[in-house]
Amino acid sequence: MAEKKKGKQTVEFVNPPYIISTSSIVGPKEGEGPLGNHFHVVLQDDLYGEKSWELSESKMQRECVKLAAQNGKLEIKDLEYLLAGDLLNQLMAATFSARALEIPFFGLYGACSTMAESLSLGAMLIDGGYADNLVAVTSSHFCSAERQYRNPLEHGNQRAMTAQWTVTGTGAAILSNKGKGPRITHVTTGKVVDLGIKDANNMGAAMAPSAVDTISTHFKDTGLRPKDYDLIITGDLGLIGKEITEEMLKDEGFDVKDVYTDCGVLIFDGEKQDTHAGGSGCGCSASVFCSYIYKEMLNKKYNRVLLVSTGALLSPTSSQQGETIPGIAHAVSITNEI
Amino acid sequence: MAEKKKGKQTVEFVNPPYIISTSSIVGPKEGEGPLGNHFHVVLQDDLYGEKSWELSESKMQRECVKLAAQNGKLEIKDLEYLLAGDLLNQLMAATFSARALEIPFFGLYGACSTMAESLSLGAMLIDGGYADNLVAVTSSHFCSAERQYRNPLEHGNQRAMTAQWTVTGTGAAILSNKGKGPRITHVTTGKVVDLGIKDANNMGAAMAPSAVDTISTHFKDTGLRPKDYDLIITGDLGLIGKEITEEMLKDEGFDVKDVYTDCGVLIFDGEKQDTHAGGSGCGCSASVFCSYIYKEMLNKKYNRVLLVSTGALLSPTSSQQGETIPGIAHAVSITNEI
Repeated sequence: MAEKKKGKQTVEFVNPPYIISTSSIVGPKEGEGPLGNHFHVVLQDDLYGEKSWELSESKMQRECVKLAAQNGKLEIKDLEYLLAGDLLNQLMAATFSARALEIPFFGLYGACSTMAESLSLGAMLIDGGYADNLVAVTSSHFCSAERQYRNPLEHGNQRAMTAQWTVTGTGAAILSNKGKGPRITHVTTGKVVDLGIKDANNMGAAMAPSAVDTISTHFKDTGLRPKDYDLIITGDLGLIGKEITEEMLKDEGFDVKDVYTDCGVLIFDGEKQDTHAGGSGCGCSASVFCSYIYKEMLNKKYNRVLLVSTGALLSPTSSQQGETIPGIAHAVSITNEI
Repeated sequence: MAEKKKGKQTVEFVNPPYIISTSSIVGPKEGEGPLGNHFHVVLQDDLYGEKSWELSESKMQRECVKLAAQNGKLEIKDLEYLLAGDLLNQLMAATFSARALEIPFFGLYGACSTMAESLSLGAMLIDGGYADNLVAVTSSHFCSAERQYRNPLEHGNQRAMTAQWTVTGTGAAILSNKGKGPRITHVTTGKVVDLGIKDANNMGAAMAPSAVDTISTHFKDTGLRPKDYDLIITGDLGLIGKEITEEMLKDEGFDVKDVYTDCGVLIFDGEKQDTHAGGSGCGCSASVFCSYIYKEMLNKKYNRVLLVSTGALLSPTSSQQGETIPGIAHAVSITNEI
């Protein structure tokens, strides 16, 4: 039975679930980036043999789940729940993947925070005894996201320097109540925070306050401090959001600079790849965590990681109606048994 | 610690969570329907004082959570998680409500199955010890759904006789590890089922096979039978989907006709209200369960209820791409202590 003190946002697990295996699939551009060698599969073509980008994204999720199961020496039928989401309207990638996989399915939406949401709920479902094994997976796709949220690619519009580049990628993690691998020890579930940013081309700034809120709450709830982590990594704040987060956390009394970075900063080489403020999307923290970070945890380069996926909860409709951009961040604390 | 046998889709709770209170808010048309007297609040105007239907829907969720908390003699700050969803792109109703409520938030999407999804995950979070109290809430709004999924209302298009009418409504349920009220004893989490229906104006037929799959799985997993329930109620299959479900269940060996109905059938008087095949939407099973059914459980008219919210996981994009309509259904078994 988990421990959660009244009034706190953080759960500490008594039986911390194991992340027994992961998998990641990314597009060609992500494969050319600094983490290219770490991904499990780099696609040659972002259509992945499908007739639309949406179906390609759905295939990425489906194949990523299969590969993660295989890496964990499990069959698909051993996975008792599929906790999945993406950025597409009505979660088209996740639902069509769930149709093919035939695993009992919980659809989740937290914009780009969804990977930490799926890991958080997944960890509770394992620790609570509701499953022996399950899979958490999220994805995004540059082409499907651009046409849904902004403009058709054929439009060729110019991007603001504060804009981020949606990652074409997916990451899947198998959580289990036994086995080997890093363990999820705590989850801190975020509240929605909105400091009034309206610029849909500056989502890093919109999401940063929610990251700060969740990270500082995590520290206050647990008594842990930045020095207790080898790595604190936000999801997709990019260069601008990362800087804001670092500064705001310092103001709150938490100096994270020695251990802090952001998946959206790591995944692209902004200068060479023309990705401006960095990567974003549900697939950003999913693919970076499930490849580079997970592997470096197995290698013991990192032994204690706080993954903080961050989401901008805007919609084209809310933006058109003049609303500001709410942000949310969930934190997942992952530890090697040392 | 919960019991879930390997290979089963059903969890049986050892400490069945209490539904200590509920609330429901509906639009004027729903207020004029057969259940009109049961809803907690009937709006006079479906804009609810807001400047858009989407913001009205969001306000409905927000106020419904406040009212449910009040009915359960709790403050908003006592609610440790908000499990919420709706039909709008990027869950605009839920996320903007979560911003105002400031409760740690998990966004969920299962189309019209979302109320049972939120009750299922909520029940696991309570039984697992992750919270003392939380709230599950979903909504839909006829006007925001029509313009997003079909046509602008101003278009005045003619509706097919198989089409359903999206309910303007919301329902919120407070789950707690102590108190009084009906208890959630089992949840059966659905798989996505797709028998190839492509007609977006006949969602009852598209969803019925998933309801049949989940209900028959529930019976097989638990050993329970239709006679063990006073009421088996699907979410929003409407007249056509209800008939298909009843027939298909009979073929599977489960005769439910004496105890079975559908929220979408109950909420409107089809002949008088011109709602064709019946009600639909996330808010349909949410508002019907949280008003009429919950009240009749308190009155002991019903002592054992199986709520099976059903979702059609289509999107306008998937329909335009010629895809069939996947369905999903989750079942929540709710019992009075007798």
